[in-house]
Amino acid sequence: MNIIIDAMGGDLAPAEPVRGALRAHKELGCDITLVGREEDIRKVLADDKTDLPEGVTIVNATEVVEICDDPARVCLRKKDSSMSVGLRMVRDGKGDAFISAGSTGALLSGATLIVRRIPGIKRAAVAPVVPTGAGSAVLIDAGANAECTAEYMLQFAFMGSFYAEKVLGRENPRVGLINIGAEPSKGSELYKEVYALLKQAGDAGRINFVGNVEPTSLASSDAVDVLVADGFVGNIVLKTMEGTANFIVQGLKDLFMTNTKTKVGYLMIKGDMGGFKKMLDSRETGGTAFLGVQAPVIKAHGNSDAFAFFNAVKQAIQFVSAGVEQEIIENMDHMVIPSQAAQE
Amino acid sequence: MNIIIDAMGGDLAPAEPVRGALRAHKELGCDITLVGREEDIRKVLADDKTDLPEGVTIVNATEVVEICDDPARVCLRKKDSSMSVGLRMVRDGKGDAFISAGSTGALLSGATLIVRRIPGIKRAAVAPVVPTGAGSAVLIDAGANAECTAEYMLQFAFMGSFYAEKVLGRENPRVGLINIGAEPSKGSELYKEVYALLKQAGDAGRINFVGNVEPTSLASSDAVDVLVADGFVGNIVLKTMEGTANFIVQGLKDLFMTNTKTKVGYLMIKGDMGGFKKMLDSRETGGTAFLGVQAPVIKAHGNSDAFAFFNAVKQAIQFVSAGVEQEIIENMDHMVIPSQAAQE
Repeated sequence: MNIIIDAMGGDLAPAEPVRGALRAHKELGCDITLVGREEDIRKVLADDKTDLPEGVTIVNATEVVEICDDPARVCLRKKDSSMSVGLRMVRDGKGDAFISAGSTGALLSGATLIVRRIPGIKRAAVAPVVPTGAGSAVLIDAGANAECTAEYMLQFAFMGSFYAEKVLGRENPRVGLINIGAEPSKGSELYKEVYALLKQAGDAGRINFVGNVEPTSLASSDAVDVLVADGFVGNIVLKTMEGTANFIVQGLKDLFMTNTKTKVGYLMIKGDMGGFKKMLDSRETGGTAFLGVQAPVIKAHGNSDAFAFFNAVKQAIQFVSAGVEQEIIENMDHMVIPSQAAQE
Repeated sequence: MNIIIDAMGGDLAPAEPVRGALRAHKELGCDITLVGREEDIRKVLADDKTDLPEGVTIVNATEVVEICDDPARVCLRKKDSSMSVGLRMVRDGKGDAFISAGSTGALLSGATLIVRRIPGIKRAAVAPVVPTGAGSAVLIDAGANAECTAEYMLQFAFMGSFYAEKVLGRENPRVGLINIGAEPSKGSELYKEVYALLKQAGDAGRINFVGNVEPTSLASSDAVDVLVADGFVGNIVLKTMEGTANFIVQGLKDLFMTNTKTKVGYLMIKGDMGGFKKMLDSRETGGTAFLGVQAPVIKAHGNSDAFAFFNAVKQAIQFVSAGVEQEIIENMDHMVIPSQAAQE
């Protein structure tokens, strides 16, 4: 297996993607292709006094996708950017998956334009794994599509379910629709329509739809495996989780620093904080999968360090092995709404 | 001032609303009218060996709004319910504000049908005060309207701004639009349209619009005073905050109970946890204001205890003194979109 990594993407590029790639190669045994400015990549190796091991190759790409570039077009305009080159490689089968910590918008439009959607899929979606009381859940769509139809969201539900089953290893994954109340009548017109479609798919035994899910229940130990939302709402959920977590952790830090007694108390707890920190650490889950395109593409967090890249490679290997794309293709008949399909 | 309290609303009725009302009467010096089954209310007083003090009166209402009642119609159908009677009293000026911990949906439709909207206001909104890194912010709309137009949201922004200024005492309150990115081009068509309207109102000096706000920034110490959203997204934000907070607090409890050392550490910190707990305690902020109706109506949390009712009365007094309704009426010209107003 060969995992392609954008060596120029993210706040800590190229050093951290290169270091994470080397660790992944060593510990996980996969081949790695580093795409980016060869000179910059070799400088990281020289700084770290490391040789390029067998199984790790560099593909030179002279351009870099910058934050100021128009995300919708940059992958076509900067044809020799590391992102563009990497996406073409995974499209052409010169690697099994592509990982980038670069601009989400650029990567998403690049993946759609270059790797292309699976025929029948109306929109690709981003599907991060978020922490819940039950461990974790796939949140789909978490921000790729600010404006959705019911059919897009039906497809998100199927794709999220396949990902939870094949990549996260959940048996008969429980699929919930994010909503403002539990009853089928709750929410906007769009959400009522999606509820009806998911109910139908559930009744037919195609997905395990458990109904509407209010985000208050994220902490619950029987939280679902897949959280379905339109990209606007999914992104708001993701960002509210992050904002609230930061807020509470800050409050906790202030609490620990209140006085000598609390400082001592903190020191006594500190050594066992591993699990608590891990629960909130986005680096643990690797990156965010893009679902609905023809090859595995993973967006690593913008501030990914070597450990986060290492975990993203681990996730990419599972993603490739799972054959999620094949599962989507085989079930396409159940993922389109005939009337809407006819209009396309 | 006379605050009307629904003695039958909420999980802990009638005991806790009655106890909270008596404490508020004693400590805050306002008159209180308790609406509900007189027999049940008098039983609470007898159990507590308390006499009805001067300034606290009981208005008998024989019916109770139940969770199974259709929220859209119950206040008209059960005319002698405590909620319906209380809303008619505040409409008729027999009290200055109404507080209920009963069904949100029933209270909202009851308030709209009985107290009625301020002329020109298209939809009433719920506006809880949520904790942020800067202290707190008004979130409007937090769930009354799952489907919104840009004009509704323009009105939410004005109403939230008046509430933040007059009730929370914020000078020139900073108004932000909840969105999935900071740039004006971010979000759905609706949010782009609302952005343009709020920008215009900001440029004209009518509100202090600071732009789009991503919920990741809730923890920030320069968080805004007013968070504007449609009712679906606002409700999702509120519930995600609650779910995430519960999740982390549970993780924290597990951490403290890990072993003897962490338990001792916890005991050393425990005494200073007041501020941290207070930060997350919804009872502290009283209830949720309904904005856009002709008299102050406050929804207390369903599980409100006496302390929460006491705080809701405190909030009601501020709400009445602030004259938010008058402020809305005086600014109505700036809160309607001419083309849309013509269509009404």
